Amino acid sequence: MIIMGLDPGTAITGYGVIEAAAGKYRALSYGCLRTDSKLAMPQRLLSLYQQLAALIQEHQPEQIAVEQLFFNKNITTAVPVGQARGVLLLCAAQQGIALAEYTPLEVKQALTGYGRADKQQIQYMISRLLNIETPKPDDAADALAIAITHAHYYQGKKLRGEVE
Amino acid sequence: MIIMGLDPGTAITGYGVIEAAAGKYRALSYGCLRTDSKLAMPQRLLSLYQQLAALIQEHQPEQIAVEQLFFNKNITTAVPVGQARGVLLLCAAQQGIALAEYTPLEVKQALTGYGRADKQQIQYMISRLLNIETPKPDDAADALAIAITHAHYYQGKKLRGEVE
Repeated sequence: MIIMGLDPGTAITGYGVIEAAAGKYRALSYGCLRTDSKLAMPQRLLSLYQQLAALIQEHQPEQIAVEQLFFNKNITTAVPVGQARGVLLLCAAQQGIALAEYTPLEVKQALTGYGRADKQQIQYMISRLLNIETPKPDDAADALAIAITHAHYYQGKKLRGEVE
Repeated sequence: MIIMGLDPGTAITGYGVIEAAAGKYRALSYGCLRTDSKLAMPQRLLSLYQQLAALIQEHQPEQIAVEQLFFNKNITTAVPVGQARGVLLLCAAQQGIALAEYTPLEVKQALTGYGRADKQQIQYMISRLLNIETPKPDDAADALAIAITHAHYYQGKKLRGEVE
């Protein structure tokens, strides 16, 4: 199964595409979509939408995973991140791709078995599970982490017969 | 000139379409776009997008106006409102319609000449300027207010030769 993890933002959206089969994960592609800060916001969102649609077209993910957002810390970025997230959710719905959301706690538990794991532990596990160097920038690493998280929980559901 | 004001939200997006000519305003249409709370968020955003595209198709506005968002008060709605706003900005960009943003202060000043005007004063001025009953619900009234605001400032720019 091909899963695309996304870490949305207006300036930079991290993406990570993995293939999950029999509990093994393989990184197919990862990196960042960027938009030009000199453009007005509607044009930046349009650029993000077009890049994302092209990425989906290229990799044909069966599922897309994103982090759930609460924003107890960074209020000033809540609206712009929400705007990028809206474009991304719309794109998934238009292409008929199922979307899954996970909390930061679920990501930590899926990757390390420990809900209070720090960034280094998460990055170490991404490298190990995918057999790659630590992905850069952080947005790409976060996107891979959420893709692995979905693969992990989805595999569990499969074993319990909750999904096909 | 036909102007569409929008007050975005996931559950309910207010809209107000006015025609502005020689300092006179006429309401062409106003009301709300609603999405089904039983649907998942990507499907709600898709529904909002489709309704909005149909509304633009119907009224062919030359310009779209929305309120600038800061969120010093309601943090919990910042992400969902941002998501709806993202879909709306994307839709405007895809259709090539110019988008203008105004602060709540600018709206109050444009409608009443007074930056601390309360809701009743704003609603009174909407009724008077458009020669209609007080529009309901508030989301539709807010959308009409932002459309009138844009007409007001745009007219000023025109008189000063800043736009054609």
